[in-house]
Amino acid sequence: MRNIKLTIAYDGTNYHGFQEQRGTGLVTIQEVLEKCLRRLAGREIRVTGAGRTDAGVHARGQVVNFDAAGWNIPAERIVLALNGMLPRDIAALEAEEVGPEFHARYSALAKTYRYTIYNSRIPSPFWRLYSHFVPRPLDVQAMAGAAQWLVGTHDFASFQAAGSPVKHTVRTLFSVDVCREGKEVIHLIFRGNGFLYNMVRIMVGTLIEVGLGKRDPDDIPAILAARNRTRAGPTAPPEGLCLERVEY
Amino acid sequence: MRNIKLTIAYDGTNYHGFQEQRGTGLVTIQEVLEKCLRRLAGREIRVTGAGRTDAGVHARGQVVNFDAAGWNIPAERIVLALNGMLPRDIAALEAEEVGPEFHARYSALAKTYRYTIYNSRIPSPFWRLYSHFVPRPLDVQAMAGAAQWLVGTHDFASFQAAGSPVKHTVRTLFSVDVCREGKEVIHLIFRGNGFLYNMVRIMVGTLIEVGLGKRDPDDIPAILAARNRTRAGPTAPPEGLCLERVEY
Repeated sequence: MRNIKLTIAYDGTNYHGFQEQRGTGLVTIQEVLEKCLRRLAGREIRVTGAGRTDAGVHARGQVVNFDAAGWNIPAERIVLALNGMLPRDIAALEAEEVGPEFHARYSALAKTYRYTIYNSRIPSPFWRLYSHFVPRPLDVQAMAGAAQWLVGTHDFASFQAAGSPVKHTVRTLFSVDVCREGKEVIHLIFRGNGFLYNMVRIMVGTLIEVGLGKRDPDDIPAILAARNRTRAGPTAPPEGLCLERVEY
Repeated sequence: MRNIKLTIAYDGTNYHGFQEQRGTGLVTIQEVLEKCLRRLAGREIRVTGAGRTDAGVHARGQVVNFDAAGWNIPAERIVLALNGMLPRDIAALEAEEVGPEFHARYSALAKTYRYTIYNSRIPSPFWRLYSHFVPRPLDVQAMAGAAQWLVGTHDFASFQAAGSPVKHTVRTLFSVDVCREGKEVIHLIFRGNGFLYNMVRIMVGTLIEVGLGKRDPDDIPAILAARNRTRAGPTAPPEGLCLERVEY
């Protein structure tokens, strides 16, 4: 085995998520990447991604690994070769050879997701693909206060998509940062050891309700304790979400 | 006449420029805007734009005016009404009633265009629609030096698209600012009393050649003096260009 760790960025707007969806006819990041690797390597290459981003979700630092056995390209050449072939909404950022024990998903120690809100009466054509538009004013202080209740090791069952098969729902959030960029843009940055299905988007949907004054910041502990999806807020839309970084 | 001044922003990616192109079947900003105004006002409304941005060019502060005689909507309601109807890549920012002498194009005293370059070996999926990707390193100091030769009142005939019918080619550039945003992004900001067809993009194409070391910064005066399009550099692509502001 010749194990390659590859970091990629993508604008997820035109894709049905990262993971291959066999037989659906929907285009995914994984399929496009594997098709380019197949053309470059002259044989089938299967990649494993660190995180399965959903349809419309972006990445600035998704990590994949694959076995390049028999493909005699120096690791640092892979980036240029891929960028010459990938569509312009996907870019290869970095490639390196790693030990055979490296697995993009299981070896990850931390992931960072950023959720971006465009908070203004007037929508922005330039942020529309990369943020969730909230026209009513948000109380960012209240959102930051509520977010701190989520930091730490908790059972996040209330923040998991209904019907998810995952039974072990305890995760650790190392930090949640809420910050403004200019007057209109709000970023919520979540760093944790793992995330349940839709967990970031449900946390954001709940924090937006806090920001709108529909919920008290101090309601979060009771929502966590309930272990019940119906107690949390709605799932925020995908276009605001971006997988920023995976740490190993 | 009830003269309305309307400021709009748009992502020009999916449009064939601002100006209506009758009978071509190509969608323009003007057509989409006039269609929405027609539905709101219940009658045909024709708008006049300050600048005719080309296909793929963006605007953060395009200004139009139109006659709203007989349409009894308060000016400040027009913004909300339009934003409820416009596609998400066009937004109304501000509307106000102005005197009958106001003309979006002829009354303009200054326009500001920004041209954005993404300068990195690795392309960015997130900047691809809003910048021109230049993979080789640019000498920003040299570009800023060359740009200063363009400031002032000059005959810009060398920087006008070949075959343009405009004969009076003297314009005044009040300022050109070259600045970096982070490591990869370079903004060139041009403020002037008027711009010839493709003038900004030809100035940028020439400045990029300076930045790549293909031309000396001090070649600019001779290019201006030649009054000959073939002496200047290529026309930089549209996606990096944005009409930022029109002053009256």
